[in-house]
Amino acid sequence: MQKRNRVTLLITSPEKLGMISTVTNLLLDHKANIVHLDQHTTDPQDGIIFMRVEFEAVDTELQKLEEDLHVLSREHALDFQLSSQEKRKRMAIFVSKSDHCLLELIWRWKSNEIPVDIPLVISNHDDLREVAESHGIPYYHIPLSKERKDEAEQKALELLKGKVDFIVLARYMQILSPNFISKFPNQIINIHHSFLPAFVGANPYVRAFNRGVKLIGATAHYVTNDLDEGPIIEQDVQRINHRYSADGLKIAGRHVEKRVLAEAVSLHAEDKVLVHGNKTIVFK
Amino acid sequence: MQKRNRVTLLITSPEKLGMISTVTNLLLDHKANIVHLDQHTTDPQDGIIFMRVEFEAVDTELQKLEEDLHVLSREHALDFQLSSQEKRKRMAIFVSKSDHCLLELIWRWKSNEIPVDIPLVISNHDDLREVAESHGIPYYHIPLSKERKDEAEQKALELLKGKVDFIVLARYMQILSPNFISKFPNQIINIHHSFLPAFVGANPYVRAFNRGVKLIGATAHYVTNDLDEGPIIEQDVQRINHRYSADGLKIAGRHVEKRVLAEAVSLHAEDKVLVHGNKTIVFK
Amino acid sequence: MQKRNRVTLLITSPEKLGMISTVTNLLLDHKANIVHLDQHTTDPQDGIIFMRVEFEAVDTELQKLEEDLHVLSREHALDFQLSSQEKRKRMAIFVSKSDHCLLELIWRWKSNEIPVDIPLVISNHDDLREVAESHGIPYYHIPLSKERKDEAEQKALELLKGKVDFIVLARYMQILSPNFISKFPNQIINIHHSFLPAFVGANPYVRAFNRGVKLIGATAHYVTNDLDEGPIIEQDVQRINHRYSADGLKIAGRHVEKRVLAEAVSLHAEDKVLVHGNKTIVFK
Amino acid sequence: MQKRNRVTLLITSPEKLGMISTVTNLLLDHKANIVHLDQHTTDPQDGIIFMRVEFEAVDTELQKLEEDLHVLSREHALDFQLSSQEKRKRMAIFVSKSDHCLLELIWRWKSNEIPVDIPLVISNHDDLREVAESHGIPYYHIPLSKERKDEAEQKALELLKGKVDFIVLARYMQILSPNFISKFPNQIINIHHSFLPAFVGANPYVRAFNRGVKLIGATAHYVTNDLDEGPIIEQDVQRINHRYSADGLKIAGRHVEKRVLAEAVSLHAEDKVLVHGNKTIVFK
Repeated sequence: MQKRNRVTLLITSPEKLGMISTVTNLLLDHKANIVHLDQHTTDPQDGIIFMRVEFEAVDTELQKLEEDLHVLSREHALDFQLSSQEKRKRMAIFVSKSDHCLLELIWRWKSNEIPVDIPLVISNHDDLREVAESHGIPYYHIPLSKERKDEAEQKALELLKGKVDFIVLARYMQILSPNFISKFPNQIINIHHSFLPAFVGANPYVRAFNRGVKLIGATAHYVTNDLDEGPIIEQDVQRINHRYSADGLKIAGRHVEKRVLAEAVSLHAEDKVLVHGNKTIVFK
Repeated sequence: MQKRNRVTLLITSPEKLGMISTVTNLLLDHKANIVHLDQHTTDPQDGIIFMRVEFEAVDTELQKLEEDLHVLSREHALDFQLSSQEKRKRMAIFVSKSDHCLLELIWRWKSNEIPVDIPLVISNHDDLREVAESHGIPYYHIPLSKERKDEAEQKALELLKGKVDFIVLARYMQILSPNFISKFPNQIINIHHSFLPAFVGANPYVRAFNRGVKLIGATAHYVTNDLDEGPIIEQDVQRINHRYSADGLKIAGRHVEKRVLAEAVSLHAEDKVLVHGNKTIVFK
Repeated sequence: MQKRNRVTLLITSPEKLGMISTVTNLLLDHKANIVHLDQHTTDPQDGIIFMRVEFEAVDTELQKLEEDLHVLSREHALDFQLSSQEKRKRMAIFVSKSDHCLLELIWRWKSNEIPVDIPLVISNHDDLREVAESHGIPYYHIPLSKERKDEAEQKALELLKGKVDFIVLARYMQILSPNFISKFPNQIINIHHSFLPAFVGANPYVRAFNRGVKLIGATAHYVTNDLDEGPIIEQDVQRINHRYSADGLKIAGRHVEKRVLAEAVSLHAEDKVLVHGNKTIVFK
Repeated sequence: MQKRNRVTLLITSPEKLGMISTVTNLLLDHKANIVHLDQHTTDPQDGIIFMRVEFEAVDTELQKLEEDLHVLSREHALDFQLSSQEKRKRMAIFVSKSDHCLLELIWRWKSNEIPVDIPLVISNHDDLREVAESHGIPYYHIPLSKERKDEAEQKALELLKGKVDFIVLARYMQILSPNFISKFPNQIINIHHSFLPAFVGANPYVRAFNRGVKLIGATAHYVTNDLDEGPIIEQDVQRINHRYSADGLKIAGRHVEKRVLAEAVSLHAEDKVLVHGNKTIVFK
């Protein structure tokens, strides 16, 4: 039996008549057997085309396909990303003291739900060392002080260098610098609480409690320089009532946070998210 | 067979040892047969007690019970509200041009889901006259101009006087004056769109579309002088994706709006909502 | 400005390398500008390919495209369906006495959410005549008796002949004969309550109440000869609690029924549902 | 400052005028400061009264209160249960090979979300030993064979004797005997998948996949001699689509299973569930 390799091609291209034919013909030339194809156009006149093609590469020489895609890219000013499932993405996890998101990610990873390698966990605290190490994941504690934040980030960048494809902030309670973010554009995923209505600023759970909200939510997004304002990947809510104390809200918040973050990480790891400006196209 | 009348008693009282005994003993003295009792204390030391008691008044003389409740009220500085289901609440509906909320309310009312009378619909436009009148509800068109807003509100107040117990703003696109609101404290229910995160200001659906949100929601609340900031009665969300246009978001928004508003109106009509400061206790 | 016509092409085909290229090339030859393309393969080796392509037909001659698709169909043993949005689908609604589903469908139709024409409503009762006629929809009352069911169905078929593309059973409480169903294969949509676990047989709401279920649901499906066992189009649930009486469950059931049915009708009307055996592929 | 102890009283009683007064007066006599009271009557004429009272026992002598409750119980043929939060419930967990439910329970327990002690985990396999022991929970492997099932259950009963208050079957893939169940009436919680419609028998996920369901669910219930038919504590669903393989359905099923089971365990541990025949009253 021939070995089958599942490959994902993501394309972002200016709208152009025949673009889908062009891409699928190229794939056919390379003997790619398409399993799923999703395509979306923002505007059929002068919009942007988003495509996700998942194919089986039986006799496909991926390197040659990639070369042809580069030619296509130059010709049509399109962006593409080719990812083979044989080569798992490498994911770093940043944490502080809360373990709920970290544990959910580790569990889904060990259950083969999230197809990644986890080369390391980085934290500004030492609290979660055992959690990581007991699952065989190296843990690096990089203490942070306001004065020497640059230094700490530099240390993290050295640890990450050449080792990871994307970063998950699993309740990492520090703000990353624009310099750090620029090294991983649309490759850093964050989770934060969300409320209807929004409570911007300190102590959102206390303020949500004081307002008597009936739903609490969580939003997973890519990190940009605008704090908590990057492209949204996934969101969900949980129903609560007046019997929840402010602490009870936090607990309910943890449940929805870990679920939404893990879902967003799955979508990213499976190349189901395309970013366009400050929004995402998610093919799920 | 004796006639059975279902009555609801709502109580808001400072925390005090024995308060529930006091109330249930009084009800027993008046031969009230308790069917449901919900009680919540914000803090057992010096908090507030909220109670909702639904009872069957077989041999209960409600007027005498009410007199005794007034005595209790003075003694313990508590607030109470006694509502007999024999006497349906009277609900006015304010609309502008959108019919989705109005139609949902009318349908639930005709299906005996919302136990109210609807003496009138008031609008700043004439568009929905037929909808109201075809269901036998008087419709009053009160045109609005910025200069003569007071006059219009005055007209509305005259129409409402002595005729209604609470008001529902079913996509009524005008801001009520503090004077108007003061006539119906915690008796005006509004519905508005909600997003995670919030988009304050103009064109929220367009901005939610531009941000690529994955959920859109609606919040029903009592109207206070802080626009859209009153006590929340009910909320819900609906999942959307990148295939929704800005118009598609508006359509999805209508569905969740009408559902949430109708649910909030039911809760209010059945005396299941107690307001405390800027939050609600909802016993459902 | 040129007139733009949005057209949808649905394809079900045996798996074959290059099939997507073949289809998109054909569309390109006919100057079809693809806006959305969704494709799914059940198995990349010997499965079935499902495709939905939505395109703008600016200079496309649809009749010629259709001819070429017929050639393709014979060549590759594939099924296709070509639907132009210029030609709205014609939907008949069958009802009995409950109005909630009918009213929701009419409202969404009048709000331009469901792009169909409604040439007639047929009922085995006369109760909902006014609802239909007040919205300008002809209403036909065909009384039913066990003995003369065939005759009644025959009458309905005559009314429908050449006039409708699909039928919605909006709480129509009669079982259609295999003969009737065979005239509208995968073109009759039904809604029925669903519970976790299932309560098969009479009085499901009473039995769900007796079991104390926490969720009630609804399932919209295509009608086949296996009662309530046809391909599922859409499902949803609603949370309930012990305070709901058996009647309260029925009310909650109505809300979820009308929502799920209307959603399924939208999906069908927009050609987003492909049926394969006893299951559906829904591209939403 | 006085030490405050939170105590929960559950009561199931035949309907009787004044019952709530009787109970709350007794509590007042014992200086119990009521924080929450929920009460529900199935029928105000000759139904059953369910009450949950949570109170602060500052100067309350619980033993004396219990004696008085026993008197009350004999007098009115009522059942009661008095649980002090100072004395945490002891929960045994039964597992087979799947770890998702076990891990979720352990995490919520370690996060102080589920107020119990976990004296032991029992399994018919040795696979999850490390998971339990790494969290300091003794793990007992009791191999099972069809011929000697009685013996294995006997062994389990000896391990549990006097040590646990309730049992959670966290994906325990064995059927307990009526004898075993009779030792823990309404004290064994199980989780199982649920579908709309139901798929009774083997391979439900494969059959749900073949039917193309749009929702998969999970039901947590008390174990009775009718397999998977005991009183329902909690249920929830998760939306899926045609892109989920049968394995993908199983993964989605795991997520909803662990969430629903953990929620049901919380409700039970906090004495929020009253069982009546084959249904539950859940005060949440």
